[in-house]
Amino acid sequence: MPRDGEDARRRLQQAALELFRERGYDATTTAEIAARAGVTERTFFRHFPDKREVLFDGEERFRAALADGVAAAPGALEPMEALLWAFGAVGPILEANRLFTEPRQTVVADTPALQERVRTKTAGLIDALAEALRRRGVEGGPAALAAQVGMAAFGRAAGAWFADPSMCLEDHLRAAFEELRNLTSAVGRADPKRRRER
Amino acid sequence: MPRDGEDARRRLQQAALELFRERGYDATTTAEIAARAGVTERTFFRHFPDKREVLFDGEERFRAALADGVAAAPGALEPMEALLWAFGAVGPILEANRLFTEPRQTVVADTPALQERVRTKTAGLIDALAEALRRRGVEGGPAALAAQVGMAAFGRAAGAWFADPSMCLEDHLRAAFEELRNLTSAVGRADPKRRRER
Repeated sequence: MPRDGEDARRRLQQAALELFRERGYDATTTAEIAARAGVTERTFFRHFPDKREVLFDGEERFRAALADGVAAAPGALEPMEALLWAFGAVGPILEANRLFTEPRQTVVADTPALQERVRTKTAGLIDALAEALRRRGVEGGPAALAAQVGMAAFGRAAGAWFADPSMCLEDHLRAAFEELRNLTSAVGRADPKRRRER
Repeated sequence: MPRDGEDARRRLQQAALELFRERGYDATTTAEIAARAGVTERTFFRHFPDKREVLFDGEERFRAALADGVAAAPGALEPMEALLWAFGAVGPILEANRLFTEPRQTVVADTPALQERVRTKTAGLIDALAEALRRRGVEGGPAALAAQVGMAAFGRAAGAWFADPSMCLEDHLRAAFEELRNLTSAVGRADPKRRRER
């Protein structure tokens, strides 16, 4: 796409985000987004298939980058370590998009239709991570569990990073993975069956 | 609802499941479901708001039972132990519904529209678990992470239980939570930053 195409694309995303925050997602039309960005509605649809997708541009590249990160992690790393490595490797993408993704969180939190889309996208990321782990020789069941759990820790880290930018994303990631380890370490210390007796 | 209402409801669910498996979800109409169950389409809609919901009856009761389980878990239990307790406590509901939920998995796996609904329902269960943990005094961030991770382990256990009914659900649950602990215990053993050097 030529440079002015890329420029229009970015203006459309920015305009959409502004309008969604001002008026709400449902009350905003694609025509209004195009007008705010100074382009025609036809141009909007040349860049995005619908009103929702304008917020989720680049998700496919992000998914590919995550899978590449898992593949590139040193072979000695255990599944969760490989995931932590991969999340660290996509950190620069997240840092670069922060000014867009952070306000997007607010819009998503207010809009059920967008939450549904986010859940579908997240499920796609989890599948890609699980597949990348299987390629490292991890069995299907543990690979799927590790991918889900790793993505949950990643979400926790990203949320904490939005709330507290004084700590870098990598440190938030490490903190989230350690919180995860601490949470799960309690299970099985004692037999829960015995504890259940009242 | 009177006994014959409950009976019609169960027949509608069974008929829907059969037809979805025979013809696929998208190719089945509510009229056909009603006909197979021997009732009118109006009766279908007296029981269920739409074609999807016929598969997810009882989810609200299940969510409430899970939250109650977390609340009833002994106070000394750590968050993940309390979740394991709660999943164990709803085991009898799952056992009772197994003949319905197990074939449902197959239908859901073949139908994107149903996967979306399942994700939304699962998000609701996670929210309920996180809220129940907060009521036990767990902070918001760790509560949300524990709820997500616990639900992932629960899904893993339920899947393994469908695949291998020779082991009881409670044992599958314990195995999944132990797998989770083993997966996460590797993180932080060595500094991933140092390991990342190539």
